[in-house]
Amino acid sequence: MTEPLRPELPIAVFDSGVGGLTVLHECLVSLPHEDFLYLGDTARFPYGERSARELRDFALELADILLAHGSKLLIVACNSATAAALPALREHLAGRVGVVAVVAPESRLAAQVTRNGRVGLLATPATVASGAYDRALAAVAPDATLESVPAPDLAPLIQAGHEVDERVVELVERLCAPLRAAEVDTVILGCTHYPLVRPMLQRALGRRVEIVSSGAAIAEEVERSLADGGLARPEGRRGGYRFLCSGDPEAFRALGTRFLQLPLGEVRHVGVAPVVDGIERPVAA
Amino acid sequence: MTEPLRPELPIAVFDSGVGGLTVLHECLVSLPHEDFLYLGDTARFPYGERSARELRDFALELADILLAHGSKLLIVACNSATAAALPALREHLAGRVGVVAVVAPESRLAAQVTRNGRVGLLATPATVASGAYDRALAAVAPDATLESVPAPDLAPLIQAGHEVDERVVELVERLCAPLRAAEVDTVILGCTHYPLVRPMLQRALGRRVEIVSSGAAIAEEVERSLADGGLARPEGRRGGYRFLCSGDPEAFRALGTRFLQLPLGEVRHVGVAPVVDGIERPVAA
Repeated sequence: MTEPLRPELPIAVFDSGVGGLTVLHECLVSLPHEDFLYLGDTARFPYGERSARELRDFALELADILLAHGSKLLIVACNSATAAALPALREHLAGRVGVVAVVAPESRLAAQVTRNGRVGLLATPATVASGAYDRALAAVAPDATLESVPAPDLAPLIQAGHEVDERVVELVERLCAPLRAAEVDTVILGCTHYPLVRPMLQRALGRRVEIVSSGAAIAEEVERSLADGGLARPEGRRGGYRFLCSGDPEAFRALGTRFLQLPLGEVRHVGVAPVVDGIERPVAA
Repeated sequence: MTEPLRPELPIAVFDSGVGGLTVLHECLVSLPHEDFLYLGDTARFPYGERSARELRDFALELADILLAHGSKLLIVACNSATAAALPALREHLAGRVGVVAVVAPESRLAAQVTRNGRVGLLATPATVASGAYDRALAAVAPDATLESVPAPDLAPLIQAGHEVDERVVELVERLCAPLRAAEVDTVILGCTHYPLVRPMLQRALGRRVEIVSSGAAIAEEVERSLADGGLARPEGRRGGYRFLCSGDPEAFRALGTRFLQLPLGEVRHVGVAPVVDGIERPVAA
């Protein structure tokens, strides 16, 4: 038996770790009247090297945990999980709760924003190699071209706390050089870590280039989805937000505050199935 | 003899401490092709309780130091110095270099942005009491009303590093309550510390309220002023920026990075006239 969806329920968000907190940040700023429940699967972080099968199992498990807490909409704030598991997740949750995931929203927003049809993408090598953004952009803007730049080192440097470091400035300049050469007028940040170096990216790209992050794009999509489903809460109230994580709550809090840019408040541990190799990975890039 | 102004010269910025770095931040993101030289008068910080006469002397001295380094435009990124010294500074520098200061630019931007003519102001008690924003807004939007909220504790809490703290959320909610009650649709951040808690402010005010900071407003004004004077550098190059401070360079760097949100790089000490009471105040709110 499925509990009927009600506007009073929170919006659920999951990610492999703390990166998705930049998506939650935008949702909290854009939709302050909604409640949110975030689950970071830090015990099994990072997702980058895991098989598609593993990631599908993880995504369904995390969705079930979140739905057991009650939820009116699910946000997948993780590129790896979206690429591997979105169709399976939508099928699993059909008739129970809607799903908003990364990739499509920011591609749609980039298609709206670009004036010259040249869009840039900055993402991890795995995300670039998946071709997910090429397909998503082609679906909404067949005439647009996508200039993709894989950035193997940027997310780890940010996660290690180097977002105001000269090394990051140099790396960002190097990554942006091909985007400038391609004369893109819009750049998609295809990794939830990158908003932490947005000022550097904007300086390197120049102010005429519009930067599109998944957080802003997803916040718009969530609002539309809630309105369509009659599930939006009335504005004016102040919503709350809380956190679950599968690893150490204190490590999550210490790392997460920089990504959320708001007080983290309550973080509770939640159990997940152990990974096959039996090793709990540390919270690191 | 006055050196002629050339596009190749840097733009000079001064403030009583690190707060003005949020103004520099916006300039660096909006005008990445320009060079900047910032002077923080941390040895004589804070300016809030000083006499108008003292502040005029300080402002002229700091302007002369900056101009001795060569500069094509001066930004006063300090509310107290602007209120006390702007006419004297403009007179002192007439025919030598243009001056852009806080208060007028963000008031002008707020007048452009407001739809219902109700503008809010969040500022220190001294700034609210000065009436500077009332006059500046009345000059550009005679029909607009200004709802001013003095915030005695917010800048000190931010300077002490509490911008992701529940205490600050509570304070921000309390400060925003009268602005919400007055149904303002635009809020001026009348203190250069406040952009550090912009996400909280946006959550407390609701997303329909437009937040106007002096940084963004000044960056626009600087661009216009340089274009009018034929002093803009061509876009495409990557400008540099460096720092002078009258107090301890290491303390400036430690505190300043949070405000600039970019690597601080070189900070050099520069001597200023000792204050009358002979006490070098610590870098603190």
